[in-house]
Amino acid sequence: MIRLLLIVLMSGWCAVAGLQCCRAGDRPNFVIIYADDLGYGDLSCYGHPTIRTPNLDRMAAEGMRFTEFYSAAEVCTPSRAALLTGRYPVRSGMCHNRFRVLRNNSAGGLPRGETTIAELLRVGGYRTAAVGKWHLGHLPEHLPPQHGFDRYFGMPYSNDMLPSADAPAGRGKFFVEQNDYWKTPLIRGTEVVDTAPDQRLLTRRYTEEAEQFIRESDDRPFFLYVAHNFPHVPLFASAEFRGKSLAGIYGDVVEELDWSVGRILDALRSRGLAENTLVVFSSDNGPWLIFDSHGGTAGLLRDGKGSTWEGGMRVPGIAWWPGRIPAGVIQREWACTMDLLPTIAGLSGQSLPQVTLDGADIAPLLLGTGSVERDAYMYYRGTTLYACRRGPWKAHFLTQTGYGVPEPERHDPPQLYQLRVDPGERWNVASEHPEVLADIQAAVDRHRATLQPVETQLEAVVPVQPAAVQQ
Amino acid sequence: MIRLLLIVLMSGWCAVAGLQCCRAGDRPNFVIIYADDLGYGDLSCYGHPTIRTPNLDRMAAEGMRFTEFYSAAEVCTPSRAALLTGRYPVRSGMCHNRFRVLRNNSAGGLPRGETTIAELLRVGGYRTAAVGKWHLGHLPEHLPPQHGFDRYFGMPYSNDMLPSADAPAGRGKFFVEQNDYWKTPLIRGTEVVDTAPDQRLLTRRYTEEAEQFIRESDDRPFFLYVAHNFPHVPLFASAEFRGKSLAGIYGDVVEELDWSVGRILDALRSRGLAENTLVVFSSDNGPWLIFDSHGGTAGLLRDGKGSTWEGGMRVPGIAWWPGRIPAGVIQREWACTMDLLPTIAGLSGQSLPQVTLDGADIAPLLLGTGSVERDAYMYYRGTTLYACRRGPWKAHFLTQTGYGVPEPERHDPPQLYQLRVDPGERWNVASEHPEVLADIQAAVDRHRATLQPVETQLEAVVPVQPAAVQQ
Repeated sequence: MIRLLLIVLMSGWCAVAGLQCCRAGDRPNFVIIYADDLGYGDLSCYGHPTIRTPNLDRMAAEGMRFTEFYSAAEVCTPSRAALLTGRYPVRSGMCHNRFRVLRNNSAGGLPRGETTIAELLRVGGYRTAAVGKWHLGHLPEHLPPQHGFDRYFGMPYSNDMLPSADAPAGRGKFFVEQNDYWKTPLIRGTEVVDTAPDQRLLTRRYTEEAEQFIRESDDRPFFLYVAHNFPHVPLFASAEFRGKSLAGIYGDVVEELDWSVGRILDALRSRGLAENTLVVFSSDNGPWLIFDSHGGTAGLLRDGKGSTWEGGMRVPGIAWWPGRIPAGVIQREWACTMDLLPTIAGLSGQSLPQVTLDGADIAPLLLGTGSVERDAYMYYRGTTLYACRRGPWKAHFLTQTGYGVPEPERHDPPQLYQLRVDPGERWNVASEHPEVLADIQAAVDRHRATLQPVETQLEAVVPVQPAAVQQ
Repeated sequence: MIRLLLIVLMSGWCAVAGLQCCRAGDRPNFVIIYADDLGYGDLSCYGHPTIRTPNLDRMAAEGMRFTEFYSAAEVCTPSRAALLTGRYPVRSGMCHNRFRVLRNNSAGGLPRGETTIAELLRVGGYRTAAVGKWHLGHLPEHLPPQHGFDRYFGMPYSNDMLPSADAPAGRGKFFVEQNDYWKTPLIRGTEVVDTAPDQRLLTRRYTEEAEQFIRESDDRPFFLYVAHNFPHVPLFASAEFRGKSLAGIYGDVVEELDWSVGRILDALRSRGLAENTLVVFSSDNGPWLIFDSHGGTAGLLRDGKGSTWEGGMRVPGIAWWPGRIPAGVIQREWACTMDLLPTIAGLSGQSLPQVTLDGADIAPLLLGTGSVERDAYMYYRGTTLYACRRGPWKAHFLTQTGYGVPEPERHDPPQLYQLRVDPGERWNVASEHPEVLADIQAAVDRHRATLQPVETQLEAVVPVQPAAVQQ
């Protein structure tokens, strides 16, 4: 009741003061919404013909839609490490050529020496919450509360990583929508609160948790990280969405994610926070093409998850901040998830961690105030550098499809594509542009000079024991 | 001067009468803008990352963007015959398995017995004009004035169909932007007015011609058919656009087409005609993929021009009619260029020609007043039926890539794709749905029963002689 009264009084004061309390001068809130295995071509505003995403389309129309936005890895664990630290995962040990991601028996996790966006903001007085998939270490010492988050509710790793004993072997189990086959737990804080959650309700539960956190806003700014488990397989949607899309279960799941985004933006609007909150939507990597109708599409891009072709790492990227980000802009400069840490640091006035950062402060792009100088973007698969982009040019030293080919193909000279002319990477123009290859090689050499040896976090194992996360 | 006075007086009257003269009750104007070889994925509003098409994006935002819009053929001549007659080209003899399209030595053309949209409307008192590429017969007896158009200005066939004597053999000539290599004439009415036009000015000249026709509006309604020669190779853009896009010459050319669309819509707006004019934008077939950076992209669709995979025949489709077509609608029901004739007949109150029509009146879809019953859509390559769509299902009896493979691959049982779940035609589900294959076969049988033998127009030849079109 007192809280309600305070809200009413503050709302009145805001109105009188012309919403000064929620505008420039105050430190903004930040919300990152991250999908899992959502492809570049899976949203209506990115050209999907049948999946309906009115909330994300509206978010793009009111904000900025990036056409060349990258995750920093081709699979889940390294991608999330990069997002939260602003660094290539090769710097944190959060990638591996054989193991690729953390598993349900992994002992490792994001090293404590790494600074996350949440830590950086919590030092500055922000409320912080992580909702959803973590996948940066499931032992208690690796969970979000150890990495700057006041609150955590979600799954410690992918929703397919703890099949039940009666789940059939092989890939058939992914196509039957049998919730009993999956036992990935739900955790609150560092405690398991549900050992076999109904995955059909997962998107809804995450959404309610996010709304709750927004509703509990006080006079402190906040950082909310919502990492959905879907559309990673196995796919589940709530009864309200199952069977409702034109595009099968995959469409149902993406349309429920779209609903979730709409709910979160509505929660911000209804609290009067929209104009003081930067919201970014993206995905951890490209679509998992081997799953056919249970996987997405990279649109016109080549290949998907697990590959360093564009389809593996270029993902949807939408930024929304009414009144600050100009509405309806299609942003064709490239950017990446690693840019979020330095950008958020700048916008919140927090100091940058004293480590090598790979992202750039892209506030000038977002706010329409200028351009951003960039050197190059590195496409890693595990700990191996496969490709490098500089300006519109991308050189592939190695290529490997996401369809499960065991060995990469080596290219000497590298293959070269001009991505703005040839986003589908269809014709190799290396022989015509030796000078570009030399320029890219110099960028790679500069990058390599900044690398330090680091112990991998993805090898060490413990017994599989979901209860291990219980305290 | 008197005309100007009349315009001023009429404008005043319109203002007084609340624009009644340009609203419901009056018969609407119709404008069809047709691009050549523009792919499904080539516009920003269809997901292209680097080609900027703000005018077409705005047209879509103010109108209706179809995500499953089809041309009725995989190459130029049959596609245009179908657009103007509302009939599969196999009914008019305007397709051929070997010759594919009319050439610069063809004797044939659209038979006089076929009724075009222009003829249908001219009977009803419409002013009619064709601007741009015709490709339905270049001899005088086949040109637009013989098919219902009061006016014609444009090229009689593709812009690559009369190379000059000094043009090198092979495909190298397409990549050098050498206007001297090309001698396709420009015709006004039935007379050649320019034997070697500067193709860099082609889009601009067509645009000016279209604007002029709109400016000359009197109290009669009009039909304007603007068929651009681009982005068919060889690519040329004016100095204002050359080198200005992010996406190379192909991007420059598409961005100039986008500019042209903006000019035409502006001409309608500035004359107060926007709310009484249905404008439809589309393309004659998919992108010509063999031309690499001088060809477009079909986005997430498979293959391109020359193929009956979706990329060959599903094209951009945007409809605009402020105040009548609801703004910002993404239309996910399938429709096709053959629907335009019956739709225009209905909206203008003209009778349908007494022949078998293959299109449907899609006014209920356009105006948001209802749905449209459809049987099936037939994918022809030449005179051979390669595939059939019914509901979301598409069966391929034959497939053949647009990359120049000489023989089709036959499928028995047919391949089957669920296009709404799998727009990229990636996984064949024929074995799971024998009942769907049977249902499609029945639709094919119904269709075949309506076919009559017809003489092809694409075999007979005359000496190559551009002057043949001079009278």
